[in-house]
Amino acid sequence: MTTYDDLRPILEPRSVAVVGVSRSGKQGAVFLNGLKDPGFDGPVYVVNPSADEVLGVKAYPTIGDLPETPDLAVLTLPAEPAIRVVSQCAARGVPGAALFTAGFHELGTAEGRERGERLLAAAGGRTRLIGPNGMGVYNPRRGVAMFPGLPSRAGGLGLVSQSGSLTSFTVRAAASRGIGFSKAIAMGNQLDLNAADYFDFLAGDPETSMIGAYIEGVPDGPAFRGALERAAAAKPVVIWKAGRVAGGAKAAQSHTGQLAGSYAVWQGMARQTGAVLVREMDELLDTLSLVATLGSIDRTARRIAVVTGPGGPAVSASDACEEAGLTLASFSDSTRAALRERVAAAGTSVRNPVDVGMVIAGATEVFAGVLGPTMADPGVDAAVVIGGEGGRAEAFARMLVDVRRAAGKPLMYAASGDFSAAETMELLVEGGVAVVPSAERALRAYARLIDR
Amino acid sequence: MTTYDDLRPILEPRSVAVVGVSRSGKQGAVFLNGLKDPGFDGPVYVVNPSADEVLGVKAYPTIGDLPETPDLAVLTLPAEPAIRVVSQCAARGVPGAALFTAGFHELGTAEGRERGERLLAAAGGRTRLIGPNGMGVYNPRRGVAMFPGLPSRAGGLGLVSQSGSLTSFTVRAAASRGIGFSKAIAMGNQLDLNAADYFDFLAGDPETSMIGAYIEGVPDGPAFRGALERAAAAKPVVIWKAGRVAGGAKAAQSHTGQLAGSYAVWQGMARQTGAVLVREMDELLDTLSLVATLGSIDRTARRIAVVTGPGGPAVSASDACEEAGLTLASFSDSTRAALRERVAAAGTSVRNPVDVGMVIAGATEVFAGVLGPTMADPGVDAAVVIGGEGGRAEAFARMLVDVRRAAGKPLMYAASGDFSAAETMELLVEGGVAVVPSAERALRAYARLIDR
Repeated sequence: MTTYDDLRPILEPRSVAVVGVSRSGKQGAVFLNGLKDPGFDGPVYVVNPSADEVLGVKAYPTIGDLPETPDLAVLTLPAEPAIRVVSQCAARGVPGAALFTAGFHELGTAEGRERGERLLAAAGGRTRLIGPNGMGVYNPRRGVAMFPGLPSRAGGLGLVSQSGSLTSFTVRAAASRGIGFSKAIAMGNQLDLNAADYFDFLAGDPETSMIGAYIEGVPDGPAFRGALERAAAAKPVVIWKAGRVAGGAKAAQSHTGQLAGSYAVWQGMARQTGAVLVREMDELLDTLSLVATLGSIDRTARRIAVVTGPGGPAVSASDACEEAGLTLASFSDSTRAALRERVAAAGTSVRNPVDVGMVIAGATEVFAGVLGPTMADPGVDAAVVIGGEGGRAEAFARMLVDVRRAAGKPLMYAASGDFSAAETMELLVEGGVAVVPSAERALRAYARLIDR
Repeated sequence: MTTYDDLRPILEPRSVAVVGVSRSGKQGAVFLNGLKDPGFDGPVYVVNPSADEVLGVKAYPTIGDLPETPDLAVLTLPAEPAIRVVSQCAARGVPGAALFTAGFHELGTAEGRERGERLLAAAGGRTRLIGPNGMGVYNPRRGVAMFPGLPSRAGGLGLVSQSGSLTSFTVRAAASRGIGFSKAIAMGNQLDLNAADYFDFLAGDPETSMIGAYIEGVPDGPAFRGALERAAAAKPVVIWKAGRVAGGAKAAQSHTGQLAGSYAVWQGMARQTGAVLVREMDELLDTLSLVATLGSIDRTARRIAVVTGPGGPAVSASDACEEAGLTLASFSDSTRAALRERVAAAGTSVRNPVDVGMVIAGATEVFAGVLGPTMADPGVDAAVVIGGEGGRAEAFARMLVDVRRAAGKPLMYAASGDFSAAETMELLVEGGVAVVPSAERALRAYARLIDR
């Protein structure tokens, strides 16, 4: 079993060597620029036998020539040279190597498999491998990234992904929803280190408060199951499992050489460990948004209040509520009386959903007046808010944060327009309000967490 | 049965009177500004007995005092004054009145119902009513809108909606996806004109090429069924039906006083008429995006090719393909041979999904080389493309349009980043390429159209 301390040097490296960036910077520069951009503060070395410097960074002929042993070597090389450099890493005692290099098991050929065996032998267990055929490590606290342009803001989400592009998409999309990362690992073929190792690492990592994953398959089912059990006992875990049906499973195999496994087995594992399974990017992001903001949710907390400005979305939210297996809360008489005072009579309702009407100015105050008694009702476990006040997004967001703090119950906000602005989003997320693009998606994500 | 000619004066008005904007412009100004903003080119009159002008528009004391009979009166008044003004409209022979006014059947009270009856009596069948409790008409070709800030670009989508806010959301969201509108009608309580009338109008409207709807319920099931049959025989129809389950149905009743009806009945109607049912905004937009671009799709056209840059999304698209009841196409030997020449060997695949790899520069040419033979394969009915070329969105979009034209088969593009830019989006949509935020959503929308 891998421990946090085992992988810490590799995933929180203090020095990095990049091998395979061409002298002109045309090949592989993205990895070097990824370290420069969010601002890695340790030493970065380039290994290139035919250059004195590459993109302004001093180059050394081999790993053996470096002035110190780097924590992590990033290899952007064809397969055979990569195998040679990995044996040099092992000889020098480099703890970890991240290999972008493809041409191994994912080929599905005897040649590919044989190359993979030689790669493992070259590492000799002394250098642990991330990949091959993976984009490697993103750690914004240390300024480590595999691409330039990734967000520099750190947070509590640890991501394990079998796809480099989905790692990049997820990091950017989560950032736009106010979620920062502890680490993201694009793990590629999992030839050596695999999902089980990364889950064990993240379970022990004090910088990680929740774990997200995109997984097509794992090389060792029982080992993964054990790691998942430990991780899910320690932190919320949300897994996007791809390769669920025959076509997807076949695609997974040619993508990263992994057997997808039976989806029923994954469903069973999720049920038994309390991990949440999702089916696509939007579901992953919505669920993680709730986990990041709502804290632990009581699994019996099914009674939802919907408070809305626009009428149509309230009807659709009511459908979504029941279709997700939740219920619309019934209000107590005193709540109803309190709401009656605050909501205009004509065209609005003091039933649930509470329709505050299309208030043009002063909506923030009207919503505050309605949300107070609604959230205080003992028959309400959580609330979804739809609407807002045009031009006063920040005031509306502060009101939601105040309501959430006072009530101590989950509050979800179906955001649109102004509320996507980064500052408003951060204010809401840091204030413990979940922000999701629609009430329907918020309710489905909430039900997923309740039903895990 | 309502004809196109019956409603044409109301939905394509040449002159409009606005009744109920306060002298200061504080109340109801949104309706007057909605006419000013996209630039209504006919005369606009204000009726206000206590002002000479309102917001720069000359005001008249009553409908009877106007210098001409307007085609449409827009009423933003409380219920009782609204009833009086509607009888003045009827006396003057105004063909239509749109009533924002609430306080009728949606209250669920005897008083509300009685007021509704008096409103109908006041109109006397001479003035047809849109609403009450509705936002009225958007017609960008005529410069008519119920809110300022709605897009001025017109198109072929006719929308019927029981929610004013969802009308506004849908108009803006569709515009951001390159879809323009012929008319959108926020029909409110459907006290007089109802969904059946609007469907018949849109079926006959030469400016409308497809019909979308958000419906909670209809006042006359058999009449609606007949109109739906006629409309769906003439044009593609996509209906977002809300109020599907008990909670939603109850919310619908307090929103617009409508009985939601059994969802099974709606499913049966859709099956028999070929209309497509959807469950939320994203599904409505995705499906309409496909209808707007792909033209009529052969219902046996289930064999899909996925062509991708990033590997992970291809796996997820493969899952979505099968889970939606479609199949991943098998390529012919000659297609496979052609692809082998164009796709680098290591880490990529000439199976379906076709993985062109993470090409940094020149992706447009690589995708073009792959899409040509793929789309030409007789075993491929349609294709989904994932990826693009950073910084060359327009060139990539032109390539997709060329491929689509050459192949004459449905082409869907899972867009991200640069491709959301309005110009690129328009280029794609006008070139007949469907643009959807993810391959999964594109495939589900495609399956909805196939299975209708």
